Amino acid sequence: MKTESYQVREGKKLSLKEYDPNETTGVTKEEAAVRKPQLQLHLVKLQERLHAEEKQSLLVVLQTRDAGGKDGTIKHVFTGLNPQGVNVTGFKEPTPLELSHDFLWRVHAHTPVAGMIGVFNRSYYEDVLVTRVHGEVDKQEVERRYDEIRAFEISLQNRGTRILKLHLNISKDEQKKRFQDRLDDPEKHWKFSQNDLDERALWDDYTKAYQDTLSATSTATAPWYIIPANHKWFRNDLIMHILLETLNDMNPQFPKVDFDPSKIIIE
Amino acid sequence: MKTESYQVREGKKLSLKEYDPNETTGVTKEEAAVRKPQLQLHLVKLQERLHAEEKQSLLVVLQTRDAGGKDGTIKHVFTGLNPQGVNVTGFKEPTPLELSHDFLWRVHAHTPVAGMIGVFNRSYYEDVLVTRVHGEVDKQEVERRYDEIRAFEISLQNRGTRILKLHLNISKDEQKKRFQDRLDDPEKHWKFSQNDLDERALWDDYTKAYQDTLSATSTATAPWYIIPANHKWFRNDLIMHILLETLNDMNPQFPKVDFDPSKIIIE
Repeated sequence: MKTESYQVREGKKLSLKEYDPNETTGVTKEEAAVRKPQLQLHLVKLQERLHAEEKQSLLVVLQTRDAGGKDGTIKHVFTGLNPQGVNVTGFKEPTPLELSHDFLWRVHAHTPVAGMIGVFNRSYYEDVLVTRVHGEVDKQEVERRYDEIRAFEISLQNRGTRILKLHLNISKDEQKKRFQDRLDDPEKHWKFSQNDLDERALWDDYTKAYQDTLSATSTATAPWYIIPANHKWFRNDLIMHILLETLNDMNPQFPKVDFDPSKIIIE
Repeated sequence: MKTESYQVREGKKLSLKEYDPNETTGVTKEEAAVRKPQLQLHLVKLQERLHAEEKQSLLVVLQTRDAGGKDGTIKHVFTGLNPQGVNVTGFKEPTPLELSHDFLWRVHAHTPVAGMIGVFNRSYYEDVLVTRVHGEVDKQEVERRYDEIRAFEISLQNRGTRILKLHLNISKDEQKKRFQDRLDDPEKHWKFSQNDLDERALWDDYTKAYQDTLSATSTATAPWYIIPANHKWFRNDLIMHILLETLNDMNPQFPKVDFDPSKIIIE
């Protein structure tokens, strides 16, 4: 599967209009279902090595609009990995203590230690998206934060953290369908919030904020991927391929030992 | 499956001699393999409700000797749950900062928030086991710590945390086999540590320390279970049953909403 085509090239001024949320290029739902267990098996093997090696870590940043599929992605892509090596952190509205720090403070505390896969369900990118759309930060502050984010990500990389940033790209119609589904299914009522409709009304403002953010912060070593996300099975399949490629490229190894195992006698 | 028989009754002075690590009562390996996917499905359903409800949490404490199967239990029992609702914390030798606090300080920070399943790979129980065997704390201090542990667990329970404490009970022969396996398999060499043999030499001291600790800290609401753990498939099967019973008893519910979903119109 060609995953590079979903990557945002560094320096590119992108327009989300060019990205089709319905895309399922070259894959059928059946094919994706058939290969899922194999992909998972490969991921588990690589994860085991990553955890044993304890030298590198992987940070997966999930960003999208409401009902964009963050929870579903975690459920379908990361279930099946060993939870001892996966750390999922959700970021909600900042607390007063968090707000009294710089915006990277609370996320820094949850970056993955060596050996771990960290998943951010929302992230520090909210601080240049939701805050901007609601006029809490001006253009200058947004630019400053882009700089801070780039510097922050370089710090993580210098210590051995690979960073994957995934924007789950859904259409406005698909969001409506998913909201309606939450209203129709009693077991999903709790997922719906009146606030979601207020945010939906700001759809175009979010589009602009996402475009600027993805353009400004996609780098060769910490790229954004724009994931066509209307079809959940395609979204999951593509993300599993991206994870697999990334972990393969990180190439973690079981640690070597400094003793001769054949010489040891157990009483 | 009758899981109560593996529970240590409050106040019981136990002897580990009475517990057979080889036990597989009434189950075959094939039966366990056949029902595993169903058990997992039930667990996933209950976990989803627990996470949505966000009122209660579950803390699973795993204690055992070296090569007793903590990592394997996490891998086989908790893989398959949604990692967004599971938080695994491993406790290694305390750092200088941790040692400058009381022994519960570092574990308290990792207790599961409402909605989560927390798994402790080793725990605050090390502070009445390894420290005692190595003579770092005297009898009086151990008794004081038992009191502190009981009080600590009550605090967690009062806030809605259910506590399951599992002692994975292996035999001395089984430990030898597992160490040998680590020495024979190049992908497992890194799991072996020379220190493991020093600890193995203290087998009987650990037996005494475990007996006293399990006797002193098994309570009706935060019981210890002694899991026959020589057969990994039986260990996993039994633990899945205990988890399922516990979650069923906690009976988490999807939250009710305070609006009428049928009245909401999405533009």
